[in-house]
Amino acid sequence: MSPERTTDAIYLDFNATTPILPEVLDAMLPYLREGFGNPSSDHAQGIRAREGVELARGQVAALIGGSANEIVFTSCATESSNLAIRGVAATRAAPGRVVTSSIEHPATTSPCAELEARGWTITRVRPRSNGVVDVSDIEQALGPDVAIVTLMHANNEIGTIQPVGDVATRAHAVGAVVHTDAAQSIGKIPVRVDDLGVDLLTIAGHKLYAPKGVGALYVRHGTVIQPVLRGAGQEHGLRPGTENVASIVGLGRACELAGERLATERVRIRQLRDQLWERLRAVIPDLAMNGDPERRLPNTLSVRFPRVDGARLLAAARGVAASTGSACHSGEVLPPDVVVQLGVDPTSALGTVRLSLGFTTTIDHVTRAADALTSAWQAVTRGGMA
Amino acid sequence: MSPERTTDAIYLDFNATTPILPEVLDAMLPYLREGFGNPSSDHAQGIRAREGVELARGQVAALIGGSANEIVFTSCATESSNLAIRGVAATRAAPGRVVTSSIEHPATTSPCAELEARGWTITRVRPRSNGVVDVSDIEQALGPDVAIVTLMHANNEIGTIQPVGDVATRAHAVGAVVHTDAAQSIGKIPVRVDDLGVDLLTIAGHKLYAPKGVGALYVRHGTVIQPVLRGAGQEHGLRPGTENVASIVGLGRACELAGERLATERVRIRQLRDQLWERLRAVIPDLAMNGDPERRLPNTLSVRFPRVDGARLLAAARGVAASTGSACHSGEVLPPDVVVQLGVDPTSALGTVRLSLGFTTTIDHVTRAADALTSAWQAVTRGGMA
Repeated sequence: MSPERTTDAIYLDFNATTPILPEVLDAMLPYLREGFGNPSSDHAQGIRAREGVELARGQVAALIGGSANEIVFTSCATESSNLAIRGVAATRAAPGRVVTSSIEHPATTSPCAELEARGWTITRVRPRSNGVVDVSDIEQALGPDVAIVTLMHANNEIGTIQPVGDVATRAHAVGAVVHTDAAQSIGKIPVRVDDLGVDLLTIAGHKLYAPKGVGALYVRHGTVIQPVLRGAGQEHGLRPGTENVASIVGLGRACELAGERLATERVRIRQLRDQLWERLRAVIPDLAMNGDPERRLPNTLSVRFPRVDGARLLAAARGVAASTGSACHSGEVLPPDVVVQLGVDPTSALGTVRLSLGFTTTIDHVTRAADALTSAWQAVTRGGMA
Repeated sequence: MSPERTTDAIYLDFNATTPILPEVLDAMLPYLREGFGNPSSDHAQGIRAREGVELARGQVAALIGGSANEIVFTSCATESSNLAIRGVAATRAAPGRVVTSSIEHPATTSPCAELEARGWTITRVRPRSNGVVDVSDIEQALGPDVAIVTLMHANNEIGTIQPVGDVATRAHAVGAVVHTDAAQSIGKIPVRVDDLGVDLLTIAGHKLYAPKGVGALYVRHGTVIQPVLRGAGQEHGLRPGTENVASIVGLGRACELAGERLATERVRIRQLRDQLWERLRAVIPDLAMNGDPERRLPNTLSVRFPRVDGARLLAAARGVAASTGSACHSGEVLPPDVVVQLGVDPTSALGTVRLSLGFTTTIDHVTRAADALTSAWQAVTRGGMA
């Protein structure tokens, strides 16, 4: 596949993955070239690698308002959430209960399912029709048997922001440990561990303009947790294996850049996102939005195109790289589960397209994407698809 | 720390980590720049990333004589060995027994210890005084209750090569699943899964001129195994999380290069290693070698300098980057455990220095390193250290 073909596309899939910022790659390259040492080595090469990792630890901590020694580097957000949920569960002598939402990412649902298979009880709270979990619904689910509350900060498909801070207060009142998956929110909105009141927080590199294959878990001082992977003593004994130095350095730099750019970028991106919505609506008046128009990430626009299947629409809108959130099971296309949970009928939900913007999105991208999507919609619906 | 200071050192610590080959970084860079897609995405960016991962899968498989669909990409060798050992253990209804050696890497010993804490029995077979585990000792340890045999292919400290093939035949005869940690042997000697007869084999990127933060597990067709980390369905359901595309591509290219260079490099490196040994012995006649002089990796020279502490020697030999294998516990320096297990007295074992060579080692490096080490030894011993 030629680079032209891929870079010509208008990339509106930043919730799937982001490009690495040039400044981030520049920070990484010395560690991919001459600075290749193992941080466990005592010689100059090792010391240099160790210093790179520790610089990054401080940069990640600074973005979320934590301390450097509360950051554990992992290989991805999925590993971070495994470490958070199963790492706390492993400290309990007997199975307990987890309270979570019904719209979490597989990085959370799968560890919960694994605990369930080992005797734990999982209470899955449904969001209201706007895609936001109500604090009172969580409150009703809480009890002294709850060991862990895990609630995503922002939903990957529809971008709705959950009331993590209010939930954490109530969860702590019953003695639970609180985890949030902030993979989608970091770098898009302010994420501060003290405002959220969480004990554990998942960070993904590749949603934040850092590389794939690196993540972090914030572990608040005093949180009792065990490692999931077992090996040597790296990362305060919580994550074995030689540190992924270059990518860790990249994650640190990306966090630094996110901190610098967040205030202006979230306004700029929100405006672009809203212009995209207006342009689409001008041609397709019965276009519907999934989730809460206010309580959502500034970069995310999840819409339902009427009388069309989202996958067919995106296939026709060739210049636009976006996603549907649909899943294929045994040859049948299923609509995004989170949209169905909002009460949207499944046929309508199949029209869902997630358009997610980022640091490199321009007004030109928005204009061209709107044109491509509306033209494709007209072509496909005129073609008579039910 | 200035790049000069680190690149001027003679790097003889390839068993700790290797530099990334320029050809490997060249293969990675397109995926760190414009080719940043998520392999799970249906658009061109996603397809391109998927193709990169699948190309690498074939390259890794080709080096070890496996099939592409027997390769699972992971974040590091430690994760691979966790997946192998605990992934097989998780398929058993009741705790069983593991047979292993007493000189494994923490990536193996820690998962074994975790199983032990959950009721499994671990039988740890000691090597003979040459650092090689005897097949008859393994055979005596085997029985119908053994579920897993895990034996490293080559030892990281002393480089001895274990009789994995013969052990696998006997282990299979009692119905055990066989795993080997080949992190140190791949790229240094031929590693073929059918010659070794193993069901599971651990690969590390950063010991093989690929980046840190990527590894692989070979899983022979028909091997029943469960994932350790839980999440979405990537890597045949055995390793969740967005694929670390660029590093996977790098690992694939590194395997390709290892296949091309191995035959000539192993001879060249062995000759350099033996020249280093001769040069050291010419000045220090009572220098001793740890491990078997024949059955060991061609790049590894583990020696005991007489009447000196290895760490103090390396501190004095400033231009040489190598390791001692010693560990510091509660302020006390302990000699490398594997050397003590060979029957060497602990004081003598403290003189151990591991010199490990690689693709970029030259005769000039060997000459200068020998001079630096012998001068340092003379200075330190003349200084009167016991």
